[in-house]
Amino acid sequence: MGFTVRGTIMQTPGPTKLEVRHGVAVAVNDDGIITSIEHANDVAPLQTVLLPGLIDTHIHAPQWPQLGTGLDLDLESWLFEHTFPLEAKLTDPSFASEVWPSLVSTLLAHGTTTATYYATIDVETTTMLAETCRAAGQRAFVGRVAMDHPDGTPQWYRDANAAQGIEASARSIDAIVALGSDLVQPIITPRFAPACTDELLRGLGELASSTGVRVQTHCSESDWEHNYAFNRFGMSDTAALDGFGLLRDHTVLAHGDHLGRDDLATLRARGAGVAHCPMSNAYFANAVFPARRALDAGVRVGLGTDVAGGARPNVLSQCGEAVTMSRLLDEGVDAELAPQDRGVAGSRVSIVEAFWMGTLGGGELLGLDVGLLEVGRPFDAVAVDTARPTSALRLWDGVDDDARSFEKVVRLAEPADFTDVWVAGRRVAGAAPKQGVA
Amino acid sequence: MGFTVRGTIMQTPGPTKLEVRHGVAVAVNDDGIITSIEHANDVAPLQTVLLPGLIDTHIHAPQWPQLGTGLDLDLESWLFEHTFPLEAKLTDPSFASEVWPSLVSTLLAHGTTTATYYATIDVETTTMLAETCRAAGQRAFVGRVAMDHPDGTPQWYRDANAAQGIEASARSIDAIVALGSDLVQPIITPRFAPACTDELLRGLGELASSTGVRVQTHCSESDWEHNYAFNRFGMSDTAALDGFGLLRDHTVLAHGDHLGRDDLATLRARGAGVAHCPMSNAYFANAVFPARRALDAGVRVGLGTDVAGGARPNVLSQCGEAVTMSRLLDEGVDAELAPQDRGVAGSRVSIVEAFWMGTLGGGELLGLDVGLLEVGRPFDAVAVDTARPTSALRLWDGVDDDARSFEKVVRLAEPADFTDVWVAGRRVAGAAPKQGVA
Repeated sequence: MGFTVRGTIMQTPGPTKLEVRHGVAVAVNDDGIITSIEHANDVAPLQTVLLPGLIDTHIHAPQWPQLGTGLDLDLESWLFEHTFPLEAKLTDPSFASEVWPSLVSTLLAHGTTTATYYATIDVETTTMLAETCRAAGQRAFVGRVAMDHPDGTPQWYRDANAAQGIEASARSIDAIVALGSDLVQPIITPRFAPACTDELLRGLGELASSTGVRVQTHCSESDWEHNYAFNRFGMSDTAALDGFGLLRDHTVLAHGDHLGRDDLATLRARGAGVAHCPMSNAYFANAVFPARRALDAGVRVGLGTDVAGGARPNVLSQCGEAVTMSRLLDEGVDAELAPQDRGVAGSRVSIVEAFWMGTLGGGELLGLDVGLLEVGRPFDAVAVDTARPTSALRLWDGVDDDARSFEKVVRLAEPADFTDVWVAGRRVAGAAPKQGVA
Repeated sequence: MGFTVRGTIMQTPGPTKLEVRHGVAVAVNDDGIITSIEHANDVAPLQTVLLPGLIDTHIHAPQWPQLGTGLDLDLESWLFEHTFPLEAKLTDPSFASEVWPSLVSTLLAHGTTTATYYATIDVETTTMLAETCRAAGQRAFVGRVAMDHPDGTPQWYRDANAAQGIEASARSIDAIVALGSDLVQPIITPRFAPACTDELLRGLGELASSTGVRVQTHCSESDWEHNYAFNRFGMSDTAALDGFGLLRDHTVLAHGDHLGRDDLATLRARGAGVAHCPMSNAYFANAVFPARRALDAGVRVGLGTDVAGGARPNVLSQCGEAVTMSRLLDEGVDAELAPQDRGVAGSRVSIVEAFWMGTLGGGELLGLDVGLLEVGRPFDAVAVDTARPTSALRLWDGVDDDARSFEKVVRLAEPADFTDVWVAGRRVAGAAPKQGVA
């Protein structure tokens, strides 16, 4: 029979295009596909705002228990003292059975309808994460993490060697495909070059080529990672990954803060793109990702929370942060320098572009038909109540036009304002079970 | 009869000192004063965390309806096209009677137990804001905004001349004092030097001297404001304000992003301090406030949301933002510069220091006996539920020690997690009426 949802659609069909459609009824069929979007006379304008579901293109599932902590550490301490021990604990199915449902249900409540996960090095708990997403109804790429380099990983948390890393990655792909879910797919996930031997990187490139499965990894996140590649490979991180066959259509490179202009051209040529994680830029990147430059270069860009290198799970917050970080890059930070020496003029991105990255841009990066409410696409959406008492989000008659209302929703809506969250037409979360659905 | 609240106290008795006291019972008398804090055996550790109430040392009340919008504008467009027209509407008591209760109730729900407001130029609606705070039970300084400079203000929103500006400011002080509230005090509020004639600034300095009423204004927020002072006064903004008698004990200078080292020494000598508004630094400051340098110089520093130059009303968020901004200042933003040329090494502040600025540091800046849960002080506090389903805040056995749990609470707790908010022992907000109180 399907169902119909009424409200005001706010979305971004293009990077600089805001679309606001008041008083519409969105019809969804039993397959969760939008069959019509039509004007409806009986809908109060702006009471309920319908957003496309939010897309997190970079998140570390086993770091969920450490969200919001350890951000005073440098990357090496962060990894070896803080993160790897926790990730190793998540190879225990018993602990994973506590953590994964907490993670996925919380992300859904935050409006994240699609997530691209780094799981663990363990095939079993990685499959458990995929199963958790399937059962909870979250669209997801789930990657079993491959890492075998004796210098870049601890002995107690790595693949024994390249062959075993490749075999386990292939086995994880089969296990996730065997779940038979339309929503959940595997993704080949070499952690990052410093954690992987050449043999592993090459083998995973071949696995991607032979299976057609997507690839994700980190690239040029920090000075250290960027310089590491030149020292080891004699070329940039991007060029090295490309040489291993890992830069393919819809490959997701996390961060890319130090990508050079040549690197951006390579990404564009391959159809690969960047998961821009604005908040984590301040903690582990030593610089801000030049999102403006990447967009202008025609590179695909989505947003990521980088849980737990980013301290919050909200993609909507990252939209605001993307604007904030672009402003800091544009104007600089040190008042004791002359204004023209402080920043990189022309680096700003707008709130419309930021929201596009968090929705349709992320969908295009991942090669999924989501991020826009349009006939023929899956109904992945968030309904926002704009009138919850004591919410920071409040619209005022005579003050807010459409563009300002949109800006408010993006910057101020919290999960408590999300009455309903749907993925492929299934209601998967929401603060108020009945509201927004007719 | 008073009452008793049980939980785990997390607070910062000093800028670098974190105190975590598990399983305590806080007894509060009928005057709202803490009479004892003792260990209680029957309290589950960490289920309820008690924080000192949050202190917003800089917020523009009439900008509440534009929260989260217009951040793409430069300061002049922001003021003349966006802000002044809205502030002028807030001289209408009818509109003010809608906006003030929305603002104050929302801030209380966000845990802001003390706020230092810029109201409007109108005495009546300024008094209404003070009355709203009194009735809702929020501790507040409420300032009638003085501004008379024909070049820096629009003809339709300014004091007719300096004499009228001084007279209205004096009248506003009397009107707020006449409310007879223990919680709400007036504050003398020249908007900022560019909006005020010398005569107005001097007259307000004299008013502060004769009445002992506190002073707040903006200082050296942006390149423009900082340079403006040199051009007009032949000295820094700080030195000029000092010359007008406005730098007094507990004077609150908003932003101060461009304060020189001599300026910091002047602030310290006068007992004045800075309302650091981290998020708004990215939008209107052209640089990041050097909080580390100010703290090291012994200058009083609190946090401000700068609503609506800052896009969120949460002081707790600003604690995280203060760390983020300090990291960006420390490391810089432009990856194309050499690391050592990018930022200002040694600029970091910790999450403990940030929380101190948002609580006790703010209390010390304002000269109020709040910001710490201690016998003899008023019970201004927030109770945080650390186990709400689908909250981003979640503590894990065996993962989080006290310091990490504190970091999580500060970075992740949202108003939906605040079961109770008290000011001077009165419960003024909270998501769950009964929880946390025994």
